[in-house]
Amino acid sequence: MSSFSFRLTNAIRSKKTPVLVGLDPRWNMLPKIFTEGKKNPSPSEAAVAFESFCRNIIDIVSPLVPIVKPQSAFFEQYGPEGMICLQKVIQYASKNGLLVLLDAKRNDIGSTASAYAAGLIGSQGQSPWGADALTVSPYLGDDSLIPFAETARAREAGIFILVKTSNPGGALFQDLLIEGKPLYRRVADFVEKLAAENREDMSEEGLDYSSIGGVVGATWPDQLTELRKVMKRTWFLVPGYGNQGGGAKDVAGAFDEAGLGAIINNSRGILFAHQSKKYAETFGESRWEDAVEAATKDMIAALAAETPAGRL
Amino acid sequence: MSSFSFRLTNAIRSKKTPVLVGLDPRWNMLPKIFTEGKKNPSPSEAAVAFESFCRNIIDIVSPLVPIVKPQSAFFEQYGPEGMICLQKVIQYASKNGLLVLLDAKRNDIGSTASAYAAGLIGSQGQSPWGADALTVSPYLGDDSLIPFAETARAREAGIFILVKTSNPGGALFQDLLIEGKPLYRRVADFVEKLAAENREDMSEEGLDYSSIGGVVGATWPDQLTELRKVMKRTWFLVPGYGNQGGGAKDVAGAFDEAGLGAIINNSRGILFAHQSKKYAETFGESRWEDAVEAATKDMIAALAAETPAGRL
Repeated sequence: MSSFSFRLTNAIRSKKTPVLVGLDPRWNMLPKIFTEGKKNPSPSEAAVAFESFCRNIIDIVSPLVPIVKPQSAFFEQYGPEGMICLQKVIQYASKNGLLVLLDAKRNDIGSTASAYAAGLIGSQGQSPWGADALTVSPYLGDDSLIPFAETARAREAGIFILVKTSNPGGALFQDLLIEGKPLYRRVADFVEKLAAENREDMSEEGLDYSSIGGVVGATWPDQLTELRKVMKRTWFLVPGYGNQGGGAKDVAGAFDEAGLGAIINNSRGILFAHQSKKYAETFGESRWEDAVEAATKDMIAALAAETPAGRL
Repeated sequence: MSSFSFRLTNAIRSKKTPVLVGLDPRWNMLPKIFTEGKKNPSPSEAAVAFESFCRNIIDIVSPLVPIVKPQSAFFEQYGPEGMICLQKVIQYASKNGLLVLLDAKRNDIGSTASAYAAGLIGSQGQSPWGADALTVSPYLGDDSLIPFAETARAREAGIFILVKTSNPGGALFQDLLIEGKPLYRRVADFVEKLAAENREDMSEEGLDYSSIGGVVGATWPDQLTELRKVMKRTWFLVPGYGNQGGGAKDVAGAFDEAGLGAIINNSRGILFAHQSKKYAETFGESRWEDAVEAATKDMIAALAAETPAGRL
């Protein structure tokens, strides 16, 4: 195998797009063919529907995009049965040639962080969940983040540490000024340092980025540009495109000149495209799969037209 | 039912101690009767052993303490089978009259935070996991924390938001100064505000605390005393006692004059007491259950002797 950064770079170049499809199954937004109009499913009903829906999505997007991102919360919500479903969805995405970034925003003190890392990251066969990469929360500091970086390196997996999140409330703590610099810049500096320390195999493979990434929201275009300049070794996971308000132009600053350095997430805007004005008229709910495909292709085209991703 | 704060207050008064036993099953520390000397268990072998071990621990401590705290990471580590085990352990603790605080340090942006809250908190029958309370991470800000507070209120459950964590690395970001005050104080101020906003039923029940709590480590005795003074409505979950270096005197500042306001966690020091110098000689591994009981009783006695918990 090769490092996560190497595999991600290759996958992006091969699909010629940095689009990341978020797998956020929400019961009340699923096409009715999955829910049969039921309002409150049992855990096993939800698990069956989510697995079927996510497999459909993976079938549609796997020829088009390099990577998918299951959101753990929507599976956890239905108890152990939801978690069994999550594992199956990760396995199905991997089998279909997609990289899998598990969005679980885990963390804890050192020895407990090691347990999370051991269980969650490392592709099929290396860990029970089998994710190629994992999102991680920074509040607990360096000795909570290093165990994730170490496991990622040992297993050729990746991590993405929250830096500047896409939600408005993220500003409450992340924007507090410390000697004139916001907190997210302090976190960014630490992530970049960790990335630089974990790039042993980068030169060999001709890579610009290590397998340590940061999360920076599409809703903060100025900060994306600012952080790209100071985080030369760090992949960006950019949430907030589409339903949260970020557009293609807003994420342009996340990329380097070659169109690498960032993956741009869209969850609801793709999964539930059949419910949006733009696609509802053309496709309607009966052709929800065509709406998913059209929304994915439209996002790929928008990023190619309005950001350096067009140079891929 | 009654609010989490009410149930916690009653449970502490009834057991006359604020000791919280952390359920952190670690394969390589289990008594050999559970592992049969195996080094690398399969997920199902680990799940069987963890369930059996945790049921034994619950049998021993349920007459002695008010509340237990399963650490999600150690169960997640073994994939869905570990998660099925976690659910069974929560159910068994509840059936034995213990309150259950799930230590999972979850969070995400608003609508995803709601999914975590819906799935994880709310006692048996209200949510698939059935925890009475949950630990939550603050980095994503107010709009990520409020959904947890709302679900907790609706279901008479509790949350504990990370404020000042017990690990040395916690200082990296939490101690950064913002206009002369450390970041953890900003988080503390927000948690206290949230606690004050969620205490609608407090006066009716004669309670001093809401069901919104904060996490403050036993390894920071001065900060515990400082935060107790400014967080009048906030329960403290205090980790770091025992193996991490905190002693009974260190946590004295976490309590109010009546001995309420804090629950003090001990995980390894109780679960694996048979391996510590203090208990190994008297009990040895064959009497590991007696070591667990002795360590629990000794901690109860130490807190009663050296903190306001002696007034319970």
